Order: sequence, then structure tokens, then C-alpha cells
Amino acid sequence: MQNFEFYNPTKIVFGTETISRLAELVPSDARVLILYGGSSAQKNGTLDEVKSALGARTVREFGGIEPNPTYETLMRAVEQIRSEKLDFLLAVGGGSVIDGTKFVATAVNFNGDPWEILLTHGQNVEGALPFGSVLTLPATGSEMNCGAVITRSETQTKLAFLSPHVFPRFSVLDPSKTYTLPRRQIANGVVDAFVHTVEQYLTYPVGGMVQDRFAEGLLQTLIEIGPKALETPEDADVRANLMWVATMALNGLIGAGVPQDWATHMIGHELTAAHGIDHARTLAIVLPSLLNVQREQKRDKLLQYAARVWQIDSGTEDQRIDEAIRRTAQFFESLGVKTRLADYELGTEAIDNIVAQLEVHGMTKLGEHKDITPAVSRTILEGAR
Amino acid sequence: MQNFEFYNPTKIVFGTETISRLAELVPSDARVLILYGGSSAQKNGTLDEVKSALGARTVREFGGIEPNPTYETLMRAVEQIRSEKLDFLLAVGGGSVIDGTKFVATAVNFNGDPWEILLTHGQNVEGALPFGSVLTLPATGSEMNCGAVITRSETQTKLAFLSPHVFPRFSVLDPSKTYTLPRRQIANGVVDAFVHTVEQYLTYPVGGMVQDRFAEGLLQTLIEIGPKALETPEDADVRANLMWVATMALNGLIGAGVPQDWATHMIGHELTAAHGIDHARTLAIVLPSLLNVQREQKRDKLLQYAARVWQIDSGTEDQRIDEAIRRTAQFFESLGVKTRLADYELGTEAIDNIVAQLEVHGMTKLGEHKDITPAVSRTILEGAR
Repeated sequence: MQNFEFYNPTKIVFGTETISRLAELVPSDARVLILYGGSSAQKNGTLDEVKSALGARTVREFGGIEPNPTYETLMRAVEQIRSEKLDFLLAVGGGSVIDGTKFVATAVNFNGDPWEILLTHGQNVEGALPFGSVLTLPATGSEMNCGAVITRSETQTKLAFLSPHVFPRFSVLDPSKTYTLPRRQIANGVVDAFVHTVEQYLTYPVGGMVQDRFAEGLLQTLIEIGPKALETPEDADVRANLMWVATMALNGLIGAGVPQDWATHMIGHELTAAHGIDHARTLAIVLPSLLNVQREQKRDKLLQYAARVWQIDSGTEDQRIDEAIRRTAQFFESLGVKTRLADYELGTEAIDNIVAQLEVHGMTKLGEHKDITPAVSRTILEGAR
Repeated sequence: MQNFEFYNPTKIVFGTETISRLAELVPSDARVLILYGGSSAQKNGTLDEVKSALGARTVREFGGIEPNPTYETLMRAVEQIRSEKLDFLLAVGGGSVIDGTKFVATAVNFNGDPWEILLTHGQNVEGALPFGSVLTLPATGSEMNCGAVITRSETQTKLAFLSPHVFPRFSVLDPSKTYTLPRRQIANGVVDAFVHTVEQYLTYPVGGMVQDRFAEGLLQTLIEIGPKALETPEDADVRANLMWVATMALNGLIGAGVPQDWATHMIGHELTAAHGIDHARTLAIVLPSLLNVQREQKRDKLLQYAARVWQIDSGTEDQRIDEAIRRTAQFFESLGVKTRLADYELGTEAIDNIVAQLEVHGMTKLGEHKDITPAVSRTILEGAR
């Protein structure tokens, strides 16, 4: 096992009817900005429930944070916080809203151009406004980690930052708030959590037995509940497990002490930035081809994945690996998530552009061995046509 | 899944050669009391390493904290802290030293008789001195939780308390520090972590799929590494996994959102208090018999345990349960941990006394259904003769 640090101070309040707990979770003298996305938070009553729990506190709202939240939009929230002297942020939504809130929290008092937070990947962050979250969409794990991904729309640049200052103080996870989500978002959430787990698991063995077992448990759970989450949207246990899997998939635990890949995400980010494809769908396109192309480097863990997650125990090594990759893609497809570039009407020209963008953004040595050069990324994308 | 809260702010610094990190983890102006147990911390050089990392800080020492740390001993540490105006505690040792340090941290500024902290199980704790730990013995999980068990030797009373004020600020986990531990302590650690996991897993199903998979992963890992930890003491990966399993077994994660038992611990505590049997050995005596006696209440999870942890998939339900219990006891015995009261030269008279002590301490409704009355505890102990 590799040496590691693990630190995660976010308090999780999990279960039905927990939004009322905001009354005690948010400081009583806080001047609160509620940040949210589209109109669904208003329509489904969550926003009203949140405001009711906040009682007599000063509360302002900032809506309209996009999927793949943009710097341009978020800087307007920063201005509102400064002009109205607000001091506590509350994200109500999914990963995009929480990621956006993390950026806003650091940008408000940032000394310099806040875009530098992204350019330095958070290394120059020295503080942040305190904030909490009310999660309404299980997927990204942002509710219990200190990372965020922000897009600058004028340059189509999608960059990530990490800072221990942006752990949410608390996150309220009420699975019943996911019942009314569109199928597409639930399917995306399952794929997103699945690929987050794989990025930290399918590398090379370092004897991280606990991390491996935990990752395998998350993947097995997603395989079991993914279809049910679409078929029976109001199954409380299925939605609760989906929410908790997604949180555990990216709160630092399964990745502590083991190598990590993240090449699928980096290539996927370019597909989203250039073509507006949902984040999870870009992962479903890239991952199966990447596993195929990197099969030598990942051989031992691919065989373990085949055996423990998919119970594949016959055939040659390469047959077992082929079958595990095939079932992975089939699982995504069974959720209605297409896995080929052609399904999104993208061909050679798009591949040229994505490879060029990876170079522009310095993504030239990806993966756990830093051996996924632009040429390898091209091979991966060719394999996903 | 049941509603739950999860909060664990302890920073873990894990790996070889990490003790030097104390230089930055302990506040530079701290007046430190190092608390430790027997002479092994001195002999094996850990204490010198710790003091070296603390550099020019004011450092005092308090040694002699016993296994099953006593109120009487710990109150002497409290007096030393008060008289020398120390303000930061550093536990160097295993669960007993860390548990003792938690009590000391709360007792120093406690308003009233500190024994009340135990009598109220921590409900009246309003603060604690800050403290960290350097773990040298993997077993109890105390390095990443907010609980402690303290014994009052004059009355042979062993009681637990919990308080969010006693999470360690940090814990340094260096697996190489366990190489020189006696076999007996390693075997005890494996059993302790195993039973901690079982107490939170083998109850009744509530659809906690992630918690179940994680618990099963910890148990599978212990079954795999337990014998190796005894055979090859300097296998870095085995010791690292043992340390991380023991931490994860009792840091709140696998027990969040699911029922918990803890009857084995409560009965075991009386065996330790009355007869001085190692904590883990009392668990090894009680658990197999408890699982047998409670097989109806635990039927569904016992079958899941048989299938997923021991890969037992043939026979009637009761045969599979019998086999899973048999293998559990056999696993403990394979580590040199005896599982029958007779092995410790205890018979009918001892059982009478333990049942009487459970009544004295109000332990009359134990287990996840609160149906383990003193009469059931007697049946469990009779079954363990």
C-alpha cells in the first residue's frame, strides 16, 4: 500500500425528512446565499423547504447555475455576495451546483483574478466562505469532497481544482428528493459513480486490500441497483443506496493509498467542453475503449475486476478481460447511456479536435503511469468510434 | 436504510516513516504531554522518534497506562496536566492508551467528578483538550473514533463513553511500528477488528447495501491476512492492511444507517473486569455462542454472512449457519485465540457472577432487538463453556 493522508470533515446528514435539520446546521446569525440550478428546485418544493428551515435568517437566492457550471455565471454570484455582504453559502442541487458553490466560496475573498484558482488547480487557495449543501442528484460525490470542476465558456476550457478549504461543512442527503429526477439524470449518476470508482480501482496492484474490496462493493452495488433505480423511481432503499454509493465513490476513501487513473475524465472533459455531451456520457464513451487499449498496464486489476465484480472465471486471461470490458459497456447501454462516438454523431474530425484540445490543456501524460500521450488518447478515441 | 449522521474529522497520516510528520501536526507552541503504556514504546525507539519530531516544544511524559486503562491511573495524568499547565496530549500506543487519553482530555477541565463522564456515557462532556495519536497496535479503531472504554479498578466497573469532542485531531499510523509486537497482541487485534465489524453487520437486513459490502470486505480481508500477520510479521502490506482494516472497522462508517448489536462486547467487558481476560479473547468466547443463540433474529444476515464471507452455498439454512459459526470460531482458534470458557478455567460459578454483574451494570436488554436479557446472556455463556 502507498503512504497516504485521509481527511474528510464534512458532516453527512442522511435520510428522509432531513432538510428541516438546516435549522441547526446553518449558524443562526448567518446571512445566507442559496445557490441552485434550474427551475426544478423551485417546482419540486425543495427550495421552499430549505427556506422554511432557515427561518428568520437573512436569505438571498442565486439560481441558474448550469450543468458544467461556468466561471462567467459564478462570478455574478460572487458580485452578489460582495454587494449584499452575505457570509454563508448553501448549495441546493447536484454536483454542478455544489462545484460552482465551491468556486464561489473561494473566489469571494480571493486576492487576484479568481480564474487563477483553476489555473493553479487550487494550490493558491488560502480560505473560503463556509458553506453546506442539500444534495438532490446523486452522482459526483462533490457533497463530501474538496474538489470542483469549472468551465470557462468563452474559451471552452474545463478545469478542476482541489483545496481542503472547500469541504462542505455539512451535506444533507435526502434520497426521497431524487424520486422526481428525469431517467437521464439517474442513468448519468449511476455511470458517473461507476467510473469514479473505476478510476481509483482499475490501475495496478499495490496491496490495497481494503480499498479494492470497498471499490468492488460499490461497483457490485451499482450493477445491482442501476436498473432498479430506473424501473422503480420511488424505491426508497434503491435511491438511498444510489446516493450513498455516489458519495462514497469520490470522498477520498477508496483512492487513499492506491494509484489513480483519471484519464477517462480528462478525455471526457474535452468531449463535454467541445460538444456539450453530458459528463457521464463522455465517461461511458471513453472508459471501455481505454480499458481495452491499456489492458497490458491494467492486466492484473482487469482480471481481478472480471473475477470479483462480474464473476467471470473461465476463458483465457484476454477472453476474461474482453468479457469484463464488454459487460461494462453493456451495463452502461442497459441504462440508456450510449457508448460510441457515432451515437453522438462524432467522427474523425471530432477526434482530431479533442486530441488537439488535450494538448492545448497540457493533458499529454495521462493515466496512472502517465503513459497516455495524445497519440494514445487518439487510439482510445478511435476505438470508441 | 435507516437515517443516519456521519461525521469524522480525524486526519489520518498513514504509512512508513510518518512519525516525523508530528513536527507539523502538533501546534508549534503546544505544551505537550505524551501518554503511553508499558516500556515497549521506550524500548523499540518509538518514543524517542516522537520526541525528536516534537523538537523544541515543551514535552512531558506520562507512562504506565494499563491495558483496560483505569480511572485511578488516568486521574494522575490529569493532575500532572493541571500542575504543569500542559495544553496538548499525544497518545503513543494502542487502543488503551488512546482511550485513556480521551478520558484525560475531557477530565482536565470537567466541571464535577470526572467519573460522571462514564456514568452518563459522555453526554455531559462539553469540551476536551486537543490531542492526537501515534498508533502502534492495530485493533480498537480508537485512533479514528470518538469513543473510549475506561475501567474503575476499585469497583471492577468497565464503562464506555462517546463524545464528538474526543475525535483525535490526527492519528499517525505507521504499520512498520507493529513489526515487533508480540503474536498475542496481533492475534487479539485481528479478533477485535473482526468482532467490531460483526457487531455492526450481523443483525437484521435494512437494505444497507454499501455498509454490508464494506463490512464483508473487511471480514474477508481479515480472514486472508490474519494468519499471514502471525507467520510473517514484517510483511509490510499485511501489516498495513491489518492497520487500515482495524481503523475502518470502528470509525463509524460501516455502522452508519444500520442496526448494531454490541452484546458480545457488553458481556465480554464483564469477563475482562472480573477475570482479567484480554478484551479480544472475551469476544472470541462470546461471539460464536451468541450467534448460535440468536440465530432466529439474525437468520437473514447469518445466511448472507455464510454465503458472502465464507462462500458456503450448500446445505439447509441451519446447516449453512452452523458452518459459518463453526468457521468463525475456527478462525479465532487458528490465531491461537481460545473460544471456550473452559480454556480460561471458568465454569458455572463464573457464569453466575458475570450474569449478576451484567444486572448490576444495567446490561439487561442487550443486542439490536434489546432481547438479550440476563437469562439469554446466561444461555450464551452456557453455550460457551
